[in-house]
Amino acid sequence: MVRLAVRAEILTIGDELCRGEIIDTNRSWLAARLWDLGITTRWMTSCNDDEQDIAEAMSRAVARADLVICSGGLGPTEDDLTVDVASRLAGVDPVVDDPARQRWEARFQGLIQMNELQLRQLRVPRGARVHGNPAGAAPCFEIELSGVPLICLPGFPREIHGIYEGALGARLAELRAARGDDEQIARRIFRVFGRGESQISQACRGLIDEAASPLARASSAGPSPPRVSIHYQVKFPEVLVKLVVRDRDAGVAAARLDALHAGMRERLAPFLYAVGDENLIDRTVRRLIESKRTVATAESCTGGMIGELITAMPGSSASYRGGAIVYSNAEKVRQLGVAQDTLDRHGAVSEETAIEMARGARERFGVDLAVSVSGIAGPDGGTPEKPVGTVWIALAASPEMIGARATAHAGILGTRKLAWPGARDQIRILSSWWSLAMIDAALDLAGGEDPTRANWVLGGGK
Amino acid sequence: MVRLAVRAEILTIGDELCRGEIIDTNRSWLAARLWDLGITTRWMTSCNDDEQDIAEAMSRAVARADLVICSGGLGPTEDDLTVDVASRLAGVDPVVDDPARQRWEARFQGLIQMNELQLRQLRVPRGARVHGNPAGAAPCFEIELSGVPLICLPGFPREIHGIYEGALGARLAELRAARGDDEQIARRIFRVFGRGESQISQACRGLIDEAASPLARASSAGPSPPRVSIHYQVKFPEVLVKLVVRDRDAGVAAARLDALHAGMRERLAPFLYAVGDENLIDRTVRRLIESKRTVATAESCTGGMIGELITAMPGSSASYRGGAIVYSNAEKVRQLGVAQDTLDRHGAVSEETAIEMARGARERFGVDLAVSVSGIAGPDGGTPEKPVGTVWIALAASPEMIGARATAHAGILGTRKLAWPGARDQIRILSSWWSLAMIDAALDLAGGEDPTRANWVLGGGK
Repeated sequence: MVRLAVRAEILTIGDELCRGEIIDTNRSWLAARLWDLGITTRWMTSCNDDEQDIAEAMSRAVARADLVICSGGLGPTEDDLTVDVASRLAGVDPVVDDPARQRWEARFQGLIQMNELQLRQLRVPRGARVHGNPAGAAPCFEIELSGVPLICLPGFPREIHGIYEGALGARLAELRAARGDDEQIARRIFRVFGRGESQISQACRGLIDEAASPLARASSAGPSPPRVSIHYQVKFPEVLVKLVVRDRDAGVAAARLDALHAGMRERLAPFLYAVGDENLIDRTVRRLIESKRTVATAESCTGGMIGELITAMPGSSASYRGGAIVYSNAEKVRQLGVAQDTLDRHGAVSEETAIEMARGARERFGVDLAVSVSGIAGPDGGTPEKPVGTVWIALAASPEMIGARATAHAGILGTRKLAWPGARDQIRILSSWWSLAMIDAALDLAGGEDPTRANWVLGGGK
Repeated sequence: MVRLAVRAEILTIGDELCRGEIIDTNRSWLAARLWDLGITTRWMTSCNDDEQDIAEAMSRAVARADLVICSGGLGPTEDDLTVDVASRLAGVDPVVDDPARQRWEARFQGLIQMNELQLRQLRVPRGARVHGNPAGAAPCFEIELSGVPLICLPGFPREIHGIYEGALGARLAELRAARGDDEQIARRIFRVFGRGESQISQACRGLIDEAASPLARASSAGPSPPRVSIHYQVKFPEVLVKLVVRDRDAGVAAARLDALHAGMRERLAPFLYAVGDENLIDRTVRRLIESKRTVATAESCTGGMIGELITAMPGSSASYRGGAIVYSNAEKVRQLGVAQDTLDRHGAVSEETAIEMARGARERFGVDLAVSVSGIAGPDGGTPEKPVGTVWIALAASPEMIGARATAHAGILGTRKLAWPGARDQIRILSSWWSLAMIDAALDLAGGEDPTRANWVLGGGK
């Protein structure tokens, strides 16, 4: 049986793109959504706000793709030519979309007098299917050129996301089905932190072969078994392992995915921290808030990055009390009570100093958990014994939270040494993520969850 | 006279691009470099690691552009097909580049046995011009297809930057001149922080017309005057104003640029903070280090972002002592000595609290300058009197640094209120940049520079 896989082209338009002034995040965002829907993006093209070039790009796209998505050039100015070019290619006039005009008028209720330019951005090609734009003025529209759907979106990411959530996502799934691609896709994202892509892909080797049903393989007369694939995506500092199952029957695809799930978990333990869309930072902060645990940070080489990551989430003030950024040794003593003797004997980048920083922060901030980081982010400051990339992290916990485990080590739940010879920003990001990973592990222990990953992350306690 | 402007196409290759897994920063980086060289990027195309699609993309590109730059697909695996496709289109064999092989062997000195795959990534089309790759294995090469230069680069940004600095930048300028485009370009970037694009473009209106030489305009027999253009680029939270002058004579272009410079400065004052490539954060931290001033931070709603921005620069430990992240009111009292009475009477988000935070940080950290931020980043927590986006910033300075100005206001050099109803991350970024802008202003005052901008940024002192 031949699958009529839908192949798409994404077209992004704008002088500012072609001058390299802005990084085009729209096309990758759209390509990821298409991929999620089982639509393959075959081409991505960008051109300037030039009538002839836009026309060439659109004509070329409908000639080689089954579906074309275009972003940009829907604004109010004379540089915005998408509606004009699409109308001309379709052989129709541009007309003002009445619902869009009514929404605009209702919104501003006479506060702003609508002028020519504002009307301009409410236009669509006559007869186009309009998908609306919950977050902006310019309507999203769809026309057919040479039998291929061309869908035009504005250039603002926020508006594109709103249009996609509103109607476009469902419409794309519909277009895919109409093309005869009735293959159903079940997928799951396994999120890994703490090991690199090569080790992870090594661990997953053979999973698919083992899992393929011998019965289905033996019976050549029966339906072909679901197709399974694994994709690895490095999203520094984490790695995403995407398991994808395709079958005409959604139930069969989902069942196979479920059957593979346990094997994947087993192979990825203890590096797997979650399954789904939520990353380690968001997960940890969400769990901190939900569990009503309080937290503080004691940062040296990360310089405030851990605090910044935690407080990026709305509502984090319910858990996060604050932090001490102790970039100098004197501040480690003053703010956190690290002993000068410890600094003299072991240095600022040492397990001993990290432990005293975490303990000092936990006591002074009066919190359940305090994490500390001290390291050498480079490019200077390394020595043969402590090269650039040497980082110590320690996690202190209140006796109430962890009980016997913490009190056995004078309040320190775990320490970890990193030795990662990367660039300064990567060392800082990696250190911050490890700090959050240790807090996440502490929440596992406190919540009575399977301690396999927690024990590995926390280095067995100290 | 007809200008033979060079029009380029940028081609980026990779399945991970078309699945939307990574954001393609290479093409914008390359487009910006081309734009700097006076080369217009007309098309940017991306495709999968598919032999036929790569061949189609390359053929199409050389048919419609004068110069093609391709990135990706030069690695060691069988998915990496750029060399094979380019060779086939040129009608030659792929061969291992001997200098690249020698560099590889010298680097690893027998430590790593070279295998088939490693040799694979050292290949180039036979007869290609090789530009080398200071930061990696795969050589950058250039061939002609249908008389159009096709330059192939690896996909790693670090390697692309190294190749560009090493030889490619000069080669592109050479190719442009060889095409007959001898127009010289003089340009300058005026960096603005504190006002939006619309106000800035309003301020610049008329600059070019006023500056055009009446003599050159009157004399139709003489050479045409240099062409001047202004481009605005919003790079949140700053705005870049790019002044570009083109002429066949480099001296004429440079002279016209210089003539326009003073007018531009005047129009952009006091929002202009610098001319050149260095942004406000890097500029401020560099000047802190150079002037041997010490600094500390007291952060509430920014949660560590200011510390993180300062410490992103290597060597910042010479100036930055540390910071207090005071996310709770109790921590504002404990770490910075803010009076409970001040919090009770004025609230955490108030000029009074920000002043006590800055003063407390300056004294406790024992530094020349301390900046404080307290605000409502949202999305919750706003009130009618203090809506989301309300932020107070205060800057405290040592008497030694600023003398009479600071002592007149009990150590406070300036305060500023922001009221910017944006998204949480934007409010935090904007607040952090304003904090650095105030430190930058303090360095202007301490250094005896023109105080116009400093006075505006610092709000006239408090």
